[in-house]
Amino acid sequence: MKATIIGIGDELILGQSIDTNSAWLAGHLTAMGFDITEHITLGDHLADLVDTLRRCCASSQVVIATGGLGPTEDDLTRFALAELLGCELKPDPEALRQIAAVFQRIGRPMTQANQVQGLIPAKASIIANRNGTAPGLQAQWQDCRLYFMPGVPAEMKEMFEHAIQPDLTDWMNRQGRPDMLVTRLLHTCGEGESNIGAALKDLMRRGANPTVNTTAKEGVVTVRINARANSEEAARQLIQPIEADILQRIGTYVFGFDQQTMQEVVIDTMRSRNLTLTVAESCTGGFLGQTLTQAPGSSDVFHGGWICYSNTLKMNLLGVNPDDLDQHGAVSEPVVLQLAANARLKSGADLALAISGIAGPGGGSEDKPVGTVWIGLASPQETQAYCFHFIGDRERIRIRSVNMALQLLYQYLNRKPVN
Amino acid sequence: MKATIIGIGDELILGQSIDTNSAWLAGHLTAMGFDITEHITLGDHLADLVDTLRRCCASSQVVIATGGLGPTEDDLTRFALAELLGCELKPDPEALRQIAAVFQRIGRPMTQANQVQGLIPAKASIIANRNGTAPGLQAQWQDCRLYFMPGVPAEMKEMFEHAIQPDLTDWMNRQGRPDMLVTRLLHTCGEGESNIGAALKDLMRRGANPTVNTTAKEGVVTVRINARANSEEAARQLIQPIEADILQRIGTYVFGFDQQTMQEVVIDTMRSRNLTLTVAESCTGGFLGQTLTQAPGSSDVFHGGWICYSNTLKMNLLGVNPDDLDQHGAVSEPVVLQLAANARLKSGADLALAISGIAGPGGGSEDKPVGTVWIGLASPQETQAYCFHFIGDRERIRIRSVNMALQLLYQYLNRKPVN
Repeated sequence: MKATIIGIGDELILGQSIDTNSAWLAGHLTAMGFDITEHITLGDHLADLVDTLRRCCASSQVVIATGGLGPTEDDLTRFALAELLGCELKPDPEALRQIAAVFQRIGRPMTQANQVQGLIPAKASIIANRNGTAPGLQAQWQDCRLYFMPGVPAEMKEMFEHAIQPDLTDWMNRQGRPDMLVTRLLHTCGEGESNIGAALKDLMRRGANPTVNTTAKEGVVTVRINARANSEEAARQLIQPIEADILQRIGTYVFGFDQQTMQEVVIDTMRSRNLTLTVAESCTGGFLGQTLTQAPGSSDVFHGGWICYSNTLKMNLLGVNPDDLDQHGAVSEPVVLQLAANARLKSGADLALAISGIAGPGGGSEDKPVGTVWIGLASPQETQAYCFHFIGDRERIRIRSVNMALQLLYQYLNRKPVN
Repeated sequence: MKATIIGIGDELILGQSIDTNSAWLAGHLTAMGFDITEHITLGDHLADLVDTLRRCCASSQVVIATGGLGPTEDDLTRFALAELLGCELKPDPEALRQIAAVFQRIGRPMTQANQVQGLIPAKASIIANRNGTAPGLQAQWQDCRLYFMPGVPAEMKEMFEHAIQPDLTDWMNRQGRPDMLVTRLLHTCGEGESNIGAALKDLMRRGANPTVNTTAKEGVVTVRINARANSEEAARQLIQPIEADILQRIGTYVFGFDQQTMQEVVIDTMRSRNLTLTVAESCTGGFLGQTLTQAPGSSDVFHGGWICYSNTLKMNLLGVNPDDLDQHGAVSEPVVLQLAANARLKSGADLALAISGIAGPGGGSEDKPVGTVWIGLASPQETQAYCFHFIGDRERIRIRSVNMALQLLYQYLNRKPVN
């Protein structure tokens, strides 16, 4: 069962935006059992779009495209589909009603330009867009099912999950399901990718089923187990002994599975022990708080904290001793110790994390180069500080600081259970 | 002068990694004057690779591919090239010497597996890899120049900049240089993409030079002017009158140019007027502070603030009246007014932004659905609050909240200059 994914837009073909939709769709379609033959990126160019659609329809049973459904002159996807299908574009009353409803919801008048989003090829049908104005389009051409979605990732994802995935699942069930791919992810911290890879070398043979591989990102090494079988249950049975073997070898570094993030693991652990957390952030400027609050329900554990970017706020809001700031600087052990301890006391939380570092590009010295980051962790028993030297640019140093603060908290929670 | 970009690898086609190489290469090739026809992503599958190479060579003068040159069984790019060229793979002494030298540099023995990276199609030549073991490959097939690079971004970028870009430049100079592409970006806020598009409709004709198009992302609509000419100066001269025309039509919505972000514009404006800013963040949990501190040097303007995620911290740290929280809820006009006004006073900053909203997925009601966000802006003159209804998932509502807070600040700074 072959599928092709197409991303449409001049900003993609010119390299001005990175296409993240195709990988997201590929992951979902692969899990459903599709064999993805190609991802193709095209510009907003009518003849190229029509040619490519025609070619892909000949080699795939399903073509899924994103982009080019906007209200402006460069949005040509609906015109390309009409040309492929050999039919006219017509105003679709239901599409226009849905577009008008979106404008009503956001409290703005519908513009003339958005009328074009209600033009639908006569041989196509619409897919509702709950997050934006552009309806999706669905059509059949020869032996191929075609789906078109907007390029905005949030609109695309919602539309795929609520309309296209169920529709494809129905259709596949009628055709006889192919083998599906099930992936199990094991996330580790505290050990490098080469050592994790060396420990699993014999499991990483090509052509095995399941296959095992590793990827590394910002301090987290993820082990992937991919199994193919004719049912999810059969795939999980293939995965189970391999996973058990891997856990026996490197389980001490595994903190989470599948879609779990470190912040979710830490928050779930704290929630189960009725612990609360606060933060005092300098160089990360709110990044740690933002990360903790990504997960819904984090408010059970995280009540808030301080962004103390300047020395004045470190003193005025969190009572850091001015002499310590003078003598040791803001990026120092005594300062993060005070930030963590005082944030804990002032907030009433059980635990506090404090981060103070030099994210660069300026501000470094021989003594404290860019990338020097102190992280403090305060608990009812004690307050400890740790120093790190991260490499990379400003953004990377900030991400690594946030991830390391979460890892320190994770290690604290798991090595020393608190009642 | 047409070019096609190919990304090769099972991890790409399965959606387990996002291909960033193709966009990077597209940006560089476009700036050099190439017209990119397609980006294609393929899995590690020999027959598909050969078929696609053959098709792309027929439609492009240059094909650039990344990935599939590693030492493991799934790396098939060299075999595909040999099949396309109709020749044998042979051990190349210079390639083997370079691979051995890399292992010597990192102080590790060369493994048997890496020998395969020294196998080169007899009709191809090698490109040195300064950052890894896999040499690049270069060949000519019919009228097409082919380049193959490793998929690791750091190895690919180094190889492109030091070997392929100079080689292509030489070749283009011999052919007679094509026009180069220069892009000018105008970022707008406060008006929808459809209205911006309608105002520029006549400029957005396909095939014009410069071309004009629009993209929208999280509340920012960007107008792109792409000009082709035989020199950068000539391209800028084509852009200038179009840019002036656009600014006359929609200049009131333009807040920045090219790589400028809203947070940079706001911080630069405040710095030039010696104004300082604080924040009080509820549903965004630190996201606004994180965004403001992305730019180096933001500490001149942004000294920090509060993450007041819980009602307790809203009362204890920022003196919100408990009766107002009871009667109106945390997501309400009186609460954001107090958060903004009190954050301003307690921090000593000139201006304060406060955000309190329902980011979801839980917490919504008929009265205040998910996506309801109040934003407060306090200045020495007055404190004002604004209510918004954003659509999308939790992450999108948080991003839109941060962007809208920055836009309100921008509008305040530009409509009512403060001394």
